Amino acid sequence: MGFSKKLFLSSQLIQPARCPLLICHIAPDGDAIGSLTGMGRALHQMGLEPTLACSDSVPSRFDYIPDVETVVQKVNAPFDLVISLDCSDLDRLGHLSQMPTFGSVPLLNIDHHVTNLNFGDVNLVDPQASSTAQVVLRLLEHMAVPLDAELATCLLVGIVSDTRGFSTSNVTVQVMEDALRLMKAGASLPHITQHSLNRRSTTAIFLWGAALALAQIEDGVAWTNIPLAMRRTAGYAGNGDAGLANFLVSAAAADVAAVFVEREDGHVEVGLRAMPGFDVAQVALQFSGGGHALAAGCKLPGPLEKAQTRVLNTLRASVACQRRS
Amino acid sequence: MGFSKKLFLSSQLIQPARCPLLICHIAPDGDAIGSLTGMGRALHQMGLEPTLACSDSVPSRFDYIPDVETVVQKVNAPFDLVISLDCSDLDRLGHLSQMPTFGSVPLLNIDHHVTNLNFGDVNLVDPQASSTAQVVLRLLEHMAVPLDAELATCLLVGIVSDTRGFSTSNVTVQVMEDALRLMKAGASLPHITQHSLNRRSTTAIFLWGAALALAQIEDGVAWTNIPLAMRRTAGYAGNGDAGLANFLVSAAAADVAAVFVEREDGHVEVGLRAMPGFDVAQVALQFSGGGHALAAGCKLPGPLEKAQTRVLNTLRASVACQRRS
Repeated sequence: MGFSKKLFLSSQLIQPARCPLLICHIAPDGDAIGSLTGMGRALHQMGLEPTLACSDSVPSRFDYIPDVETVVQKVNAPFDLVISLDCSDLDRLGHLSQMPTFGSVPLLNIDHHVTNLNFGDVNLVDPQASSTAQVVLRLLEHMAVPLDAELATCLLVGIVSDTRGFSTSNVTVQVMEDALRLMKAGASLPHITQHSLNRRSTTAIFLWGAALALAQIEDGVAWTNIPLAMRRTAGYAGNGDAGLANFLVSAAAADVAAVFVEREDGHVEVGLRAMPGFDVAQVALQFSGGGHALAAGCKLPGPLEKAQTRVLNTLRASVACQRRS
Repeated sequence: MGFSKKLFLSSQLIQPARCPLLICHIAPDGDAIGSLTGMGRALHQMGLEPTLACSDSVPSRFDYIPDVETVVQKVNAPFDLVISLDCSDLDRLGHLSQMPTFGSVPLLNIDHHVTNLNFGDVNLVDPQASSTAQVVLRLLEHMAVPLDAELATCLLVGIVSDTRGFSTSNVTVQVMEDALRLMKAGASLPHITQHSLNRRSTTAIFLWGAALALAQIEDGVAWTNIPLAMRRTAGYAGNGDAGLANFLVSAAAADVAAVFVEREDGHVEVGLRAMPGFDVAQVALQFSGGGHALAAGCKLPGPLEKAQTRVLNTLRASVACQRRS
C-alpha cells in the first residue's frame, strides 16, 4: 500500500473519533514524547479531546516540551480510538495495552522503525523517516492542521532527538526541509538542542569517566564495561550505557564498539555499534538479540566477564571476516 | 557600511585579479579549510588561478575535503590579490603574512569572528554568520557562481564544523536554508558529519577517560585537569583539551566548566565554558585571556595546582555573583 493511501486511511480513522487515547513506548525518548505531545496538540486543535499516556513516567529532562505535564500513566477516561506512537510492537506500550477497552476500539499505529510489526488497524509506518515526528508531520500536512510554535517545537524535538542533531546517516534533504519548516513555524532549534543534546546528568559524566578509563581498542574492536559497582559509585540511576557505545565507536581505530552493562538481575546487557560499512546486527542475532547494522544489542546471562569474553570473541571474528570481504 | 555594499566591493576587488593567494588561519579547523577550498574552487570556475595556502600543514582528518591536497605551506608563485579566510587578525595567518609581496597587493578579509580587526582593504566580515563558509556562500551568490557538488561540500564542511552539527546557539533559519541549499547542490550531510563529528582520535578517547575520572562539580562549577603525564600516558599528541570543556559544561549541575591543561613550557592553558545565561569571558579577562560569554580561555604560569586554585576561586566567586543577579 502506498504511503498516501495510508495517510488517507489514517485520517479516516481519526475523523469520527471524539476522545482518542495516544500512547508512546515505555522508557520514552525525545521522539516518543515529541510525537505524543505534537499529535495530541494537533488533535486538540481539531476539536478532539485526546488523552496522552505512557506506561512509564516521563523523565524530568523532558519538562521543557510543551504539554508534557498532561501525559498520564493511568487512564481512567473512556476512549474511542488508540493511536500508538513510535512503538514497534504492542509489548513496548507497557501495561496500558492490557486495558480491557484497548482491543475493542480501532488502533492507529504511527511509527518509523523498520522492525514495526504492523499491529494496528491502520499502520502509518515509514522506515525511511528519521523519526516518528516526521511521520506525524506528514499526517498533519495531509489533514491540513496549521502549525503553531508549540506544536512545531514538539515535532522538532522528535527530529533532533532521533537524528542526534542531524548527525545520523538518514538525514536527507526532506529531514532538513521539515526542520526548517518547523523553525519557520516558531520552533527554536537552539533551545531544543540545548535541552536535548547539550545537557546530561552529572552522574552520567562521572560514569563516562569511570567506564572510559577501562576502555580498550584492539583490531578494530573498542569495548568497555559498566559493572554494577561502577554505576553505584558514580551515583548513576539509569540502566543503559549513557551513550557510551556511540562515543566509543567514534574512535579512529574502531570499526565496531561494545559496551557491557551488568544488570541488577545478574544479566549482562550488550550495546553494539558499527561504523558505516560494518555490521553488528549479525553478532547480536547470534546471542538472540537484534537491531540494525550500525546499532544492535543483546542480553546474556552473567557473570560480566564470561559474557564479555563470549561476545568479544564473536565480534572479533566477525570484524576480521568483514574486513577481508 | 551595509553588507551588500561590502559584497559589491569584494567582487570589485576580485574581478581584475588573475592569480589570487587564498590563506586561512594557522591550526586550521573545518571552517578554515572548507572556506579556503570552497573559495578556491569558485575562483577556479571563474577562470582565475588561485593558490591555496596555510602556514600550518593541514591535518589528515581533513583529507576528505575536495581540493585539500592543493593547499601549500610555502608560496613561490606570484599573486596579485590576497584573500584571508576565517582569520580575525594578521598574526593568525602565520609566517605567510611575512612575504614581501603580501603588503603590496590588495587584501580581502572574509570572516565571521566578532573580534575581527578589519585588517583588509575590504572587510567582508559578518559576526552574525555561523561560519566563514556562510559568508563565502553570500559572496558566491552575489557573483552568481554556480555551485557544484564539490564546492557545496567544502562550504557545508565549514557550516557543520563551526556549528558543531547545527547544535550551537547561532543556528538560525538562514543557516538551515544554506545547509539545505548546499545539500541540494550535491553535498552529503551524512558524509560530512561522519568525518567531522563522528570520528575522533583513539588517544583522545583514552584522554577523556583519564581526565573525566578526575572531574569534580561543586556549586555549579565543573572542572578537571590534564597534567603532562596524563597526556603522555594516553598517547595524546594534541595540545588542547580534546573537547572536554564542551562536554563538562553539559553536566546538569554545571553552570560553568574549566579544564586546566599543563603545557610543555610549564604554563597552564585554561579552557572555560558557560551555559547560556552565564558568562566566563569576564573571568578569562581577569587573567589576561579573552573570548566570548559562553567560551573563553586564558593562560597562567604553573604549577598546575596553583593556577587551578587561582582560577577556580575567581570562577566560584563569579558564578555565585551571577546566580544572585
